[in-house]
Amino acid sequence: MILYLLDLLGVAVFAVSGALAAGRKSLDLLGVAAIAIVTAIGGGTLRDVLLDNPVFWIQDSIYLVVILFSAALTLIYTRFRQPPAKALLIADALGLSFFAISGAQGVEQADLSRIIVVLMGTITGVVGGVLRDVLLAEIPLILRRGNLYATAAIAGIIVYLILQQFGMMRSLAALLGMGTITAVRLASIVWGLSLPVYSLQERK
Amino acid sequence: MILYLLDLLGVAVFAVSGALAAGRKSLDLLGVAAIAIVTAIGGGTLRDVLLDNPVFWIQDSIYLVVILFSAALTLIYTRFRQPPAKALLIADALGLSFFAISGAQGVEQADLSRIIVVLMGTITGVVGGVLRDVLLAEIPLILRRGNLYATAAIAGIIVYLILQQFGMMRSLAALLGMGTITAVRLASIVWGLSLPVYSLQERK
Amino acid sequence: MILYLLDLLGVAVFAVSGALAAGRKSLDLLGVAAIAIVTAIGGGTLRDVLLDNPVFWIQDSIYLVVILFSAALTLIYTRFRQPPAKALLIADALGLSFFAISGAQGVEQADLSRIIVVLMGTITGVVGGVLRDVLLAEIPLILRRGNLYATAAIAGIIVYLILQQFGMMRSLAALLGMGTITAVRLASIVWGLSLPVYSLQERK
Repeated sequence: MILYLLDLLGVAVFAVSGALAAGRKSLDLLGVAAIAIVTAIGGGTLRDVLLDNPVFWIQDSIYLVVILFSAALTLIYTRFRQPPAKALLIADALGLSFFAISGAQGVEQADLSRIIVVLMGTITGVVGGVLRDVLLAEIPLILRRGNLYATAAIAGIIVYLILQQFGMMRSLAALLGMGTITAVRLASIVWGLSLPVYSLQERK
Repeated sequence: MILYLLDLLGVAVFAVSGALAAGRKSLDLLGVAAIAIVTAIGGGTLRDVLLDNPVFWIQDSIYLVVILFSAALTLIYTRFRQPPAKALLIADALGLSFFAISGAQGVEQADLSRIIVVLMGTITGVVGGVLRDVLLAEIPLILRRGNLYATAAIAGIIVYLILQQFGMMRSLAALLGMGTITAVRLASIVWGLSLPVYSLQERK
Repeated sequence: MILYLLDLLGVAVFAVSGALAAGRKSLDLLGVAAIAIVTAIGGGTLRDVLLDNPVFWIQDSIYLVVILFSAALTLIYTRFRQPPAKALLIADALGLSFFAISGAQGVEQADLSRIIVVLMGTITGVVGGVLRDVLLAEIPLILRRGNLYATAAIAGIIVYLILQQFGMMRSLAALLGMGTITAVRLASIVWGLSLPVYSLQERK
């Protein structure tokens, strides 16, 4: 039950982030709804399709209702005020952390190798944002030089898997994994941490 | 049988629209074929993958034949004449209306919630065009300010569902739903109707 | 066994090509890994999802290990030397040829029509590169005017199918199909062969 609520919260946060990105590109209302939906469910959908599971939001339409409601609230709110950048970044970090761990948990039970578990959790966490950027014709944010995003997800999932290996309770390990993701993500924003860039110069 | 012919007609129309878009970007012959295929089958393919149904054009290769034939005819025709813009817009509106309603009908029987039926019909109708634009590195047309496209599909599917609710025969409701889509789409072109735009200014 | 090794070799080659493309856009290390993965497994993944087969790299994580290892080697190598452009083009042509034929073979047994077999083989060979270009916000290379790429794949698969039709052993036909792809691809680079371009001028 708590998991389900956290899941809905993650969906809501990503819907808000999608709606704001759509607003920056001046899309119409339906475009805003479309980008909000894709951002919020893209990662989980790709995970479900790759694993040949039933797609999560098709069985349970409350997800779409939450997304459309969040996008509408975003539109109304930003009519009157600036979006609170800091609150959003924290919310986004929490959303990422929950999606990544819950994505990893979904795969864990299917008896797949560890590297696949890490990859599926990361896909669940980040692919929605990638699709949002591709639809808006930009190089996806997480592929560009900058703060740690997918890196945070990967670090947290690894922490979660290792703690379980050492016998920690699953729910506690999940909590610490989520904490790791949020901490790495926020620390990278505050201190401007980033991965080394690989830059190839074409010789003439 | 009539449904199947209308389906093939929809595929043909979208193949022509894909081929014309490819021509505007000066792709080679194979690029034209690829864009025509993606435009014509993209929406139905995503619907089938999301619902874990067999993908419609894999079982029945007549779809691909129709697409390649339509793309070839487009190439030959435009060698000699300008594409008839008005006829194409009407054909495209008809294609959209048929794909959207047939997409909704496919999902209806699976006992899913109404919002999913509307979404799946809309996906069937519009995703091919979105993929066409993404592959040509443009912001998808339907996400940009402009005429009503996805809106028309959504309106028609809702009309179709409501009429059935009131006891109307399924085939008649489908016909009226398709009529609604075509009418809304063409009216939006003629009178320049569009949805309100959501535009966020970044404050400095 | 030989097939499996060739498959891994194809994956490695495409991972290198993805890593180099990422380097040209100055992505960070994780971005490089992501683009390498998508380039190497994109085509096979789409084929498996469309046919509703289990996705090949989820069951067997050695693929991901090979990809990450190849990307890492690429990073280290290009620190010290220019990438050997010619060797890479030949390796890429070999990778394409193997992916296309192995993709066609996977579908052949499912009793589908010939046009679907050709299409699935081509998808397996070229979609990874298309996704790489879309993620880097470029019009996919194979859609642009230039050398024969998908054309080479299609020609080789058709040769493979026709030779089998005439009673040739499957493995020999596969070898000749792969040879055709490599030859057409390399010949098109050496002599600058390309398909005719379809270019539509908008009249004012």
